[in-house]
Amino acid sequence: MSPHNALRCQQIQPFHVMELLRRARELEAQGRDIVHMEVGEPDFPTPAPIVEAATRFLSAGEVQYTGSLGLPALREAIAGHYRERFGLEVDPCRIAVTPGASGALMLAIAALTDVGDVWQIPDPGYPSNRHFVRAFEGIARALPVSAGADFQPTPEQVAEAWCERCRGLMVASPANPTGTMLDPESLSRLAATVGERGGALLVDEIYQGLSYGIDPTTALAVGQDLFVVNSFSKYFGMTGWRLGWLVVPEGFERQIEKLAQHFFICPSTVAQHAALAAFSPATREILETRRAEFARRRDLLLPALEALGFGVPARPSGAFYVYADVSRLSEDSEALARLLIEQAGVATTPGLDFGTHLPRRHLRFAYTTAATRLEEGLARIGRVLGQS
Amino acid sequence: MSPHNALRCQQIQPFHVMELLRRARELEAQGRDIVHMEVGEPDFPTPAPIVEAATRFLSAGEVQYTGSLGLPALREAIAGHYRERFGLEVDPCRIAVTPGASGALMLAIAALTDVGDVWQIPDPGYPSNRHFVRAFEGIARALPVSAGADFQPTPEQVAEAWCERCRGLMVASPANPTGTMLDPESLSRLAATVGERGGALLVDEIYQGLSYGIDPTTALAVGQDLFVVNSFSKYFGMTGWRLGWLVVPEGFERQIEKLAQHFFICPSTVAQHAALAAFSPATREILETRRAEFARRRDLLLPALEALGFGVPARPSGAFYVYADVSRLSEDSEALARLLIEQAGVATTPGLDFGTHLPRRHLRFAYTTAATRLEEGLARIGRVLGQS
Repeated sequence: MSPHNALRCQQIQPFHVMELLRRARELEAQGRDIVHMEVGEPDFPTPAPIVEAATRFLSAGEVQYTGSLGLPALREAIAGHYRERFGLEVDPCRIAVTPGASGALMLAIAALTDVGDVWQIPDPGYPSNRHFVRAFEGIARALPVSAGADFQPTPEQVAEAWCERCRGLMVASPANPTGTMLDPESLSRLAATVGERGGALLVDEIYQGLSYGIDPTTALAVGQDLFVVNSFSKYFGMTGWRLGWLVVPEGFERQIEKLAQHFFICPSTVAQHAALAAFSPATREILETRRAEFARRRDLLLPALEALGFGVPARPSGAFYVYADVSRLSEDSEALARLLIEQAGVATTPGLDFGTHLPRRHLRFAYTTAATRLEEGLARIGRVLGQS
Repeated sequence: MSPHNALRCQQIQPFHVMELLRRARELEAQGRDIVHMEVGEPDFPTPAPIVEAATRFLSAGEVQYTGSLGLPALREAIAGHYRERFGLEVDPCRIAVTPGASGALMLAIAALTDVGDVWQIPDPGYPSNRHFVRAFEGIARALPVSAGADFQPTPEQVAEAWCERCRGLMVASPANPTGTMLDPESLSRLAATVGERGGALLVDEIYQGLSYGIDPTTALAVGQDLFVVNSFSKYFGMTGWRLGWLVVPEGFERQIEKLAQHFFICPSTVAQHAALAAFSPATREILETRRAEFARRRDLLLPALEALGFGVPARPSGAFYVYADVSRLSEDSEALARLLIEQAGVATTPGLDFGTHLPRRHLRFAYTTAATRLEEGLARIGRVLGQS
């Protein structure tokens, strides 16, 4: 007899895009040139001041455990970020530094979810959200969101889907895979809808800072009783360092700390010392230049995709994704993704990864590659679709 | 209405030693000198070749995501470690690089535990083990282990405690807090007892390499159907980097990979590149020198504690802990720990953190501080106990 897998393993799905990535690598190994528009990772390296801070720390310091919720100086620096960019006072005690936003999502879900508790989760959305809920024996209830509502849930929809076992609602702004944002008023109404029912509102702000034509926002401006997840990966360009943070409502600090002690001991000390340089003016200047470059790419990609026959009914204003409607081109976005990788050498992510609401109608394009490469990819797609 | 905590938060305990650590820091802030014998972290810095590998990587490389189970080169290097040190072939596909051993424990428990499933866990033991089981809605059943059996469970004990819902047994060798090891024959008999019942044997080898007078061992020499947790923190001196690994039986790779994708995305890329230097001859030489120093400290501490009236009925042969019986000195190890910190300025860890089996009879001394400091601490304890 050999041990068998837990049920959660049968129900948790892998990232489907990995299959596509494997195929992309196979083709590259055969000498094919692949334009990567599937990767949710900025193509810019970590800003030099952040790398230098890490190197300085390594040359001087001993790499020991920190407190479970992170270095006091980093928690202060994050509070400073809310003060300077958003004019908000956030007590550093309410800020937990985590191993990536993944760690932050894990802590929040673990702290709030009993067996059979329900979370409302927008569909499409970041795939791991529902799997975290499943991992801790909760039930993820998909809230189908559509282009007409900017791919964001409405208070009416949340109220109607609410049930006795509902513990909360997760939203993301800017959202993955759609790039749409929630304006303060919509967020405020969602917070009220959830709050009146004793639920928790968990706001994913992982792409905060990457918004175009709209100033960055935070849900904390709407209320302090929210759980807010953030990351050093995307705007700050620190993916492989694995560092994020979680802001919790007053009164939750001790519970989160207990869980963090056992789950992680602490986040990476090296990454934490590096991140101390993430909020400096020098870093900010680099990051804002990159933000402008992402904006240019979006403005290049959007009309070009529409010209090729893709639909983009909800204009993305943040992150680095376009969630395109393929229905004029194909009945199945997965088949189209396969066609594009094999014949055009362009890798994209089919909707399948993001949920069950019209996944075969959508394809996610990431603009995490240089404008010239995007142009090359678009030209090749045009040829494969017989449009040039 | 505000959101309430999940039940798991009520049942998961913090590390009690943190309170003591806080008190130690208060006293230090008042100018008191504290001898730290409570910390489960080597006092040596990360070996220079490992730090240099990280610095080299940072100067050249882009810090991007790796595969969820780690860099292929690092998985190969870990397989090489089993080949060179233990003469064992372990397929790198079965090795998952994780964010610390914490990440490895989390993956194994999550992959194997359904709601209400039972794990047998030696008591005393590493506190997070039972909390991981609770976090994933399993039930941790304490197996009381005593000095007479080297603080390790016996096959008879496991067989008797087995129940229909038992999914597995966790053991540690060398163990925390006791420093005892399991010999291959005992381990083999435990593996058979668990295997015959369709359970999983999870072996914590986090302190592997830190054994004194006994060559390091691995449970993989006994069987390949085990889950084995290891760490770069202790022997390799990389605590704050947060890197460990998990070896799984054939057939579990895909399940573990799915969970790792969602839980972590990937382990720290910087730490992984650093760890590529962990198995080099230059690093090995540094680590073996430290190992000899730990052995000297143990040999200093053991007789001195016995001379002070502490009992050490099971001789520790690994890790960097002595789990001392205080019954000749006090009825309550927690009260004694408080006396020692307040009056002797010596910080220790009371048994309370490690379980419910005779915790008030035991105090853990860590020899993670220089021999001269150990001597100073011992002298002060002697004075407080009125023995000098």
